[in-house]
Amino acid sequence: MLVTIDDIRHAAASVDGVVLRTPVVGSAARPDLLLKAESLQPTGAFKVRGAVHAIASLPADARAAGVVTHSSGNHGQALAWAARRAGIPCVVVIPDGAPPVKIEAVRRLGATVELVPAAQREVRAHQVAEERGMTLVPPYDHPHIVAGQGTVGLEILVDVPSPAAVLVPIGGGGLASGVATAVKALAPATRVIGVEPELAADSAESLAAGQRVTWPVEQTGRTVADGLRTALSDLTYAHLSAYLDGIVTVTEVEILSTVGSLAREYRLVAEPSGAVAPAAWLHHAASLRDRFGIGDGPIVAVVSGGNLDPALLATALVG
Amino acid sequence: MLVTIDDIRHAAASVDGVVLRTPVVGSAARPDLLLKAESLQPTGAFKVRGAVHAIASLPADARAAGVVTHSSGNHGQALAWAARRAGIPCVVVIPDGAPPVKIEAVRRLGATVELVPAAQREVRAHQVAEERGMTLVPPYDHPHIVAGQGTVGLEILVDVPSPAAVLVPIGGGGLASGVATAVKALAPATRVIGVEPELAADSAESLAAGQRVTWPVEQTGRTVADGLRTALSDLTYAHLSAYLDGIVTVTEVEILSTVGSLAREYRLVAEPSGAVAPAAWLHHAASLRDRFGIGDGPIVAVVSGGNLDPALLATALVG
Repeated sequence: MLVTIDDIRHAAASVDGVVLRTPVVGSAARPDLLLKAESLQPTGAFKVRGAVHAIASLPADARAAGVVTHSSGNHGQALAWAARRAGIPCVVVIPDGAPPVKIEAVRRLGATVELVPAAQREVRAHQVAEERGMTLVPPYDHPHIVAGQGTVGLEILVDVPSPAAVLVPIGGGGLASGVATAVKALAPATRVIGVEPELAADSAESLAAGQRVTWPVEQTGRTVADGLRTALSDLTYAHLSAYLDGIVTVTEVEILSTVGSLAREYRLVAEPSGAVAPAAWLHHAASLRDRFGIGDGPIVAVVSGGNLDPALLATALVG
Repeated sequence: MLVTIDDIRHAAASVDGVVLRTPVVGSAARPDLLLKAESLQPTGAFKVRGAVHAIASLPADARAAGVVTHSSGNHGQALAWAARRAGIPCVVVIPDGAPPVKIEAVRRLGATVELVPAAQREVRAHQVAEERGMTLVPPYDHPHIVAGQGTVGLEILVDVPSPAAVLVPIGGGGLASGVATAVKALAPATRVIGVEPELAADSAESLAAGQRVTWPVEQTGRTVADGLRTALSDLTYAHLSAYLDGIVTVTEVEILSTVGSLAREYRLVAEPSGAVAPAAWLHHAASLRDRFGIGDGPIVAVVSGGNLDPALLATALVG
């Protein structure tokens, strides 16, 4: 069962007044590309949308018992943030080798951190859920998460009613699934194009193969876009198969160059994963227009997040 | 005659749907400070608001004849941008020693650039106005400009109805005049505090002296906050005297450190002038609370712009 536009409208009611209503940002220097700036969310990524809606959708008693996850990245921070907003307990299971700055960020958001060996992360999260009656909230493989991330698509269409194309990055596929569902429901003529790093193009290969394909982490682990190393789930694969017009890839050099362009020309700090969708347009506009029959009209790319090592941003700025 | 809240409401109708409705951005890392992100305007600064309203306020025949200014900075770009949006001619008079990148930015926005020796800049702008029947649009010394910039204050109060304090940078005083007028009219209990670089604290001295004081450019030219080197006009002095709760100063080190903090913690690229208001809170929160009797409740600082040398941002990020 695919998430519907009504599910996404329901999620919009959950996130309204809780997450930031992010702007679609333009630049006088680049009149052809608009950016949906999810990097401006309080934790620096779109993930708060799914986390807030997942918590809001729990029955009252389950909600009171709290939530748990095993993501130490943007989803872990988003869930901790959303749990604090909802006034409920949250446990984030983190591998004991994780950078102290990530652990500290989750703790500062009021969540309880459990450090375990990396291999035991998922098992421990399930244990915590069982022991404490908490709900495990996955980063993307759940209809409520897909619906929550889909509110990005709804908002784009309020600000830009008929974009010629919407570009969205693909990691686990939660964001791309939600955005594609919303845009195709309300603006069927708009092309919706997924973008992946060349080094983690498992979704492109999956769509081409007509079935879900996963790449080894030795391969996907090489991209600087660390938020996009994850593979699709059956749920997100089904959405992308149904709604995407296609998936394109960008190189590592294009990603880093775009991190610099977005800071200089749009005054946005984007992490590499967040720069992937605009990178496709900045580096391949003509071939995308051709391949997907994109007409005149605004192009909107989703900047999914802005959490990166400041030294990497400094390099991208002057590199 | 001071600009009124009705003038600002009128300006809001001019800018609605033309300039970006910028968000008030929060950070999970800094729950005590919210930022009004004017750096996200298409030219990278709040100046488009005043420029759009000034053009919209012209009688039809004057508007058709076009506009002229002698600012090569954010106001020049904003006027060029607003003129193009209105479909009218625009001349920007620029000193012949200005950096080519600034000249190019104005030309790319469709304005005609006239290069003259720096000393003849104002005279030439007046000549152009007379010869071509164009209207000279000053960067801050005009009620329409003050009203246009005041829409920043209106929008802050829509998103954050009763802030404990609003912090706003002061250069020529157009932004601070408009914001203070709007906030004091609608939320009289909110403290409105102007912020200046220590090296360009002519407004603070003016308010303390009870009359307009100007500092030599040899002095104000030393601050890295190049947008705040200008002196008040009689018009802006009158507004600040009437409405500001006070003016505080920040050091050069505090300004640059805040440029880095805003990029890392709010994912916003701010120029030094744009970082001045948040710098006051990040470095002096306790003393500001004490001095101005600031209670609990949200603090909002205006990030006025985001145009800076990428190398300077890189230094601030890792410095």
